[in-house]
Amino acid sequence: MEIPHIKELRRAYGFDEVAIVPGDVTINPDQSNIDFSLGGFNFSIPFLASSLDAVSSPKFAICIGKIGGLAVLNLEGIYTKFDDPEAVIQNIAEVPQEQATPLLQKMYASPMKDNLIGERVKEIKQAGVTCAVSVTPANAKRLAPIAIEAGADILFIQSTVTTARHLSKSSEGLDLSDICKQIRVPVVVGNTVTYSATIELMETGVQGVLVGVGPGAICTTREVEGIGIPQVTATLDCTAAREEYFHRTGRYVPIITDGGMRTGGDICKAIASGADAVMLGTTFAQAEEAPGMGYNWGMASFHPALPRGTRINVGSKGPLEQILFGPTSMTDGTQNLAGALKASMGMCGAFTIADMQQADLVIAPSIKTEGKYFQLGGHR
Amino acid sequence: MEIPHIKELRRAYGFDEVAIVPGDVTINPDQSNIDFSLGGFNFSIPFLASSLDAVSSPKFAICIGKIGGLAVLNLEGIYTKFDDPEAVIQNIAEVPQEQATPLLQKMYASPMKDNLIGERVKEIKQAGVTCAVSVTPANAKRLAPIAIEAGADILFIQSTVTTARHLSKSSEGLDLSDICKQIRVPVVVGNTVTYSATIELMETGVQGVLVGVGPGAICTTREVEGIGIPQVTATLDCTAAREEYFHRTGRYVPIITDGGMRTGGDICKAIASGADAVMLGTTFAQAEEAPGMGYNWGMASFHPALPRGTRINVGSKGPLEQILFGPTSMTDGTQNLAGALKASMGMCGAFTIADMQQADLVIAPSIKTEGKYFQLGGHR
Amino acid sequence: MEIPHIKELRRAYGFDEVAIVPGDVTINPDQSNIDFSLGGFNFSIPFLASSLDAVSSPKFAICIGKIGGLAVLNLEGIYTKFDDPEAVIQNIAEVPQEQATPLLQKMYASPMKDNLIGERVKEIKQAGVTCAVSVTPANAKRLAPIAIEAGADILFIQSTVTTARHLSKSSEGLDLSDICKQIRVPVVVGNTVTYSATIELMETGVQGVLVGVGPGAICTTREVEGIGIPQVTATLDCTAAREEYFHRTGRYVPIITDGGMRTGGDICKAIASGADAVMLGTTFAQAEEAPGMGYNWGMASFHPALPRGTRINVGSKGPLEQILFGPTSMTDGTQNLAGALKASMGMCGAFTIADMQQADLVIAPSIKTEGKYFQLGGHR
Amino acid sequence: MEIPHIKELRRAYGFDEVAIVPGDVTINPDQSNIDFSLGGFNFSIPFLASSLDAVSSPKFAICIGKIGGLAVLNLEGIYTKFDDPEAVIQNIAEVPQEQATPLLQKMYASPMKDNLIGERVKEIKQAGVTCAVSVTPANAKRLAPIAIEAGADILFIQSTVTTARHLSKSSEGLDLSDICKQIRVPVVVGNTVTYSATIELMETGVQGVLVGVGPGAICTTREVEGIGIPQVTATLDCTAAREEYFHRTGRYVPIITDGGMRTGGDICKAIASGADAVMLGTTFAQAEEAPGMGYNWGMASFHPALPRGTRINVGSKGPLEQILFGPTSMTDGTQNLAGALKASMGMCGAFTIADMQQADLVIAPSIKTEGKYFQLGGHR
Repeated sequence: MEIPHIKELRRAYGFDEVAIVPGDVTINPDQSNIDFSLGGFNFSIPFLASSLDAVSSPKFAICIGKIGGLAVLNLEGIYTKFDDPEAVIQNIAEVPQEQATPLLQKMYASPMKDNLIGERVKEIKQAGVTCAVSVTPANAKRLAPIAIEAGADILFIQSTVTTARHLSKSSEGLDLSDICKQIRVPVVVGNTVTYSATIELMETGVQGVLVGVGPGAICTTREVEGIGIPQVTATLDCTAAREEYFHRTGRYVPIITDGGMRTGGDICKAIASGADAVMLGTTFAQAEEAPGMGYNWGMASFHPALPRGTRINVGSKGPLEQILFGPTSMTDGTQNLAGALKASMGMCGAFTIADMQQADLVIAPSIKTEGKYFQLGGHR
Repeated sequence: MEIPHIKELRRAYGFDEVAIVPGDVTINPDQSNIDFSLGGFNFSIPFLASSLDAVSSPKFAICIGKIGGLAVLNLEGIYTKFDDPEAVIQNIAEVPQEQATPLLQKMYASPMKDNLIGERVKEIKQAGVTCAVSVTPANAKRLAPIAIEAGADILFIQSTVTTARHLSKSSEGLDLSDICKQIRVPVVVGNTVTYSATIELMETGVQGVLVGVGPGAICTTREVEGIGIPQVTATLDCTAAREEYFHRTGRYVPIITDGGMRTGGDICKAIASGADAVMLGTTFAQAEEAPGMGYNWGMASFHPALPRGTRINVGSKGPLEQILFGPTSMTDGTQNLAGALKASMGMCGAFTIADMQQADLVIAPSIKTEGKYFQLGGHR
Repeated sequence: MEIPHIKELRRAYGFDEVAIVPGDVTINPDQSNIDFSLGGFNFSIPFLASSLDAVSSPKFAICIGKIGGLAVLNLEGIYTKFDDPEAVIQNIAEVPQEQATPLLQKMYASPMKDNLIGERVKEIKQAGVTCAVSVTPANAKRLAPIAIEAGADILFIQSTVTTARHLSKSSEGLDLSDICKQIRVPVVVGNTVTYSATIELMETGVQGVLVGVGPGAICTTREVEGIGIPQVTATLDCTAAREEYFHRTGRYVPIITDGGMRTGGDICKAIASGADAVMLGTTFAQAEEAPGMGYNWGMASFHPALPRGTRINVGSKGPLEQILFGPTSMTDGTQNLAGALKASMGMCGAFTIADMQQADLVIAPSIKTEGKYFQLGGHR
Repeated sequence: MEIPHIKELRRAYGFDEVAIVPGDVTINPDQSNIDFSLGGFNFSIPFLASSLDAVSSPKFAICIGKIGGLAVLNLEGIYTKFDDPEAVIQNIAEVPQEQATPLLQKMYASPMKDNLIGERVKEIKQAGVTCAVSVTPANAKRLAPIAIEAGADILFIQSTVTTARHLSKSSEGLDLSDICKQIRVPVVVGNTVTYSATIELMETGVQGVLVGVGPGAICTTREVEGIGIPQVTATLDCTAAREEYFHRTGRYVPIITDGGMRTGGDICKAIASGADAVMLGTTFAQAEEAPGMGYNWGMASFHPALPRGTRINVGSKGPLEQILFGPTSMTDGTQNLAGALKASMGMCGAFTIADMQQADLVIAPSIKTEGKYFQLGGHR
């Protein structure tokens, strides 16, 4: 029997469920160029560091900036609430696991200090690298001018789900179109996961869109609130919006896939799904230069009433330069990420990120047959 | 080769297989209203407590009633069979696991006492909260009048699968149309899982329908008898029946999804699948106020010849108020269920349950990649 | 790009992947009749015991025959090779696991004794129950007449895959049409899994067809030889052949699903997939009356060059009568199989096996979310 | 909402996800012929040994050549870099796991010695068996003439992904059409996984194509670089290209499926997917005659900057002859591979590999239900 008006469910896919099809033409990896451009700023690697306090300290921002990437400094966290953020992080890193969430809840209840915002931005700028900062929609109007005044180059406005048509109880809701016009630096906004919401965000004038909400099956956003789209489908949909908007307006707004990537393979798949760049959290939290002392935590993990996620021991995997460019003795895809991307692009005959966005993907079984295959990893 | 007349199999989906798509419009969570109305009674939360003896004691019914929900008292269990139900439950809670099923079989073989039915109903009514009671179809004619006489407000008629056209060997089978006409309180009936059976149940005049038969892959109904429909598809189908019936008759019969939900995310998905409310068992059995002393058992677990399910140690997770409204330090989706629902509705731009029923769902991979993703849980 | 002439792959389903949809009409379980008829013989339960030496001894055949079922005696195994089969089985049961396959290979290398064939058949017949015997195609011509002479009522001709058009190097291949005409007892043949092969087998005049080749994902036939069809699809296809053949010829040839069932739920699904009866091995090997002393092994486990499967410790689960009819304190679906089937038929409104064959099936997620759902097993 | 120009994802399948459908005609296994022909050379078994240093030593090549198969000697590894390869392998086998990758990186950094190339080839030829050698595209022009001069019969040109249109920075890239014309021995090339790339490779004049890139879900090529196609789909696609090319040109170019097979069942499925032969690595590394001393490693595991895969302890499973032809007491599908293939072909009524390529496949559940089914392995 046909059921009238039944809601249709579309299948969405995550990184573990797809694989990239090699091309009919191949090139040498060293012929691939992985440059990325955002709001007029150029980067030699399409990797951004998340606006997490265990990742993007001013020092880390300088470090990744000098080797071609971009870190986004959270203006509402440890670095703008405390004069001595290292001490706070050490405290967070040292408490037993069961005390971590209450401690995070307590520390993040402290107020931001306007003077620290300026200081952190200036520290980054004085090192000569591009400075990106992140605010939530609720605080954008107040905090953004301070950071820009201090020299910030790019403004990220981020919440779990951000739409151009957010309806707030207060009449003073954030109008993205206004802020894009008023503010003299490029605005990047997120996160979003749908075609239509991406189109609407682009129409406000933003210069970049972050994609990713509840990407993983056990993501706490999905567990706690039921919300989420597997990251490959989210990227495919939002980059389709970028193409549609570009063809209609001539303006190209880069898509940055944010979340759920762990290996070089996941990053390659994000690009093959259409992304211009990827934003990585835990990968960079594992760098020796990361401020988190081997730990990481999210921006919802200290929510006073409904915390999601908690402090995680991510360990330390080596210097940032090795994580990005190798050489490595690790064989699990967590090091030499730029090398892995270039190798993958070589097998797809992709000279540029734009070429790699055209690579074919297949849905490939994600079921792991433990111990079944001996993985010999192909030829050189 | 085409095989003639082969039976076609439709794919059905469970909570773990879907995710909610955020909306093009978002609102603040505190703008969401989660009121629910059943048979003329209004509730400020769309959460019902199952008619299980380890959950819905008279005391628990009063407790949840006072904070906006509804518990359904089983008229064929411990509370109407024994003068001192606490002692019986303590006995059940204390025996070793291998003796639990035989003890349950023995205890539930005791007869119901009519006087206790009245006493239990009156205890709830005297506290000033709505009183719902549950009977099986076989006992409905005998027990319902006693409960209603004592003041019961809503009658639930429940069996594993209930149809409007049940054919009984005895000529005295239950005619739902008759009972809906004769009885002066609203009748809610269940469980069912199909479009056509739901339509037929609504046509008997019932004021609510419970949805859910063998929802989980390891549900004992499915294991023992092969019967079951994953809960998302069951809810989608039965709420499609509600819409069809409503458009044809103008009468709106709420659908209550019953079973298989464990987290806030599951509840949000049930609503996004079209449910008006959800019925929870184990979630409430884990409340400090629940009578089960950290245990729970089902209404088929003491079947004399074919018991399904057994006594389960569910533990205690905190006060009911915290489970429903937080604040919480738990990050696994089992506390602050109302907050989680409102947060989810906010991301979907849903002001009401009726709005949330319109949210899009995708089929999202349920395969868990253990330890792969560090779940940071999005932004605030 | 469209690939020309690519082989199309159809999706096949197993028991763990489907669930039965309850009906729009329900009946009381005791109104269901589960009679089964094969080659003119009637049985009160549609359960056959496999022709495995650890299951169907003459004694077990008598035991199950007296309570309404049918066991099939293997004419090429322990019972016809040895005067004292109990001693041989005890020997098999007692050797360490690593010696089991070599011992099986050695014991089954012994020749059959014609006199024992007659004795075993007579033992069963003298008890007044129907006697079914099983031979391989290669030995059918020689062994069948001996057994029939001794009184065997039904002849099963069984190999892993049996077709009507088997091409043998020797000119003396088995012609099923000939044997069906020459032999004066009904012939049941198997195993098969496809629509077309079933049609061809029915056209030879056989009175029953066994369905099942490599049903499980880890079935050794599938692991070793790549061959196999999940059992629900195999049953759907072969019962579609039965319907087609019946509509064309007016002759109804029952389908017996053989293999892969463990619980009452699996049996119910086999019937809902169209089967007239099921053949069970391990379920009956677990009966106290089974000859295997808590072990079971297959007919390919002693292949001299390519053994598949091995001796398995299946344990003992209770008396046959309890396994078939309960009452039980087990809640995992392995006892009271007749009661489970009747309960399931009640929920589908099925008065007969023929009714139950019409029940709807859905594809339901087989992914187990360990510890996630507390299984309360519905209402009484 | 329909999303314009969204990239479509096709579903690809691996060995664990399919099963072979038995035929309407069956034959006796000993009627099956599994001959294989490559570049004018005939082999009595369609099994090739991979060009891995732990598998295809000169001695192993002689051993498998004498019983009807073919091993491919790697010209860029241990045997051509070191005078005493056994000592090097012993060293690799003896270091602790964490030192294995660095040691491999160090050993493989040694240069090839031209004189050793000739010596190794001559050793094989003097034993009277067919000699196949493998080179990477970058070294093909330099190394191939030396090997052919010494008597090599077949040249394999192998890299992870090989295309006819590889674009190299240097002007001296390898032109496959040129090499096929210039070299007087048949050229086999790989690996590839797509229809179009296979067509293009065949058009260069090669006499065989190797299929397989990142076949398994946890294959390191897929983990590190995101690239890969499950092996059944890759084989179906590339053998469809073989058919198309054959129908157009009359030239038949065999497809050799390389990678991801572990059991006889996997091999049978590769043939049923259209392959003419299979290339096995670990299976042969487990032979007593293999040089790896119970270990195996891949050709990318010693990449200086991005190693993929590592040294794996594969153990020893018995003599090569037993692995290929049995008899065996193993029941897991890893021994008597020729016997398993013939048994499978018998059930499909396949007299030849070409017949077996026509067998039907179904998509069968790959989800393992641990301990659920007792696998009895069918009848004899």
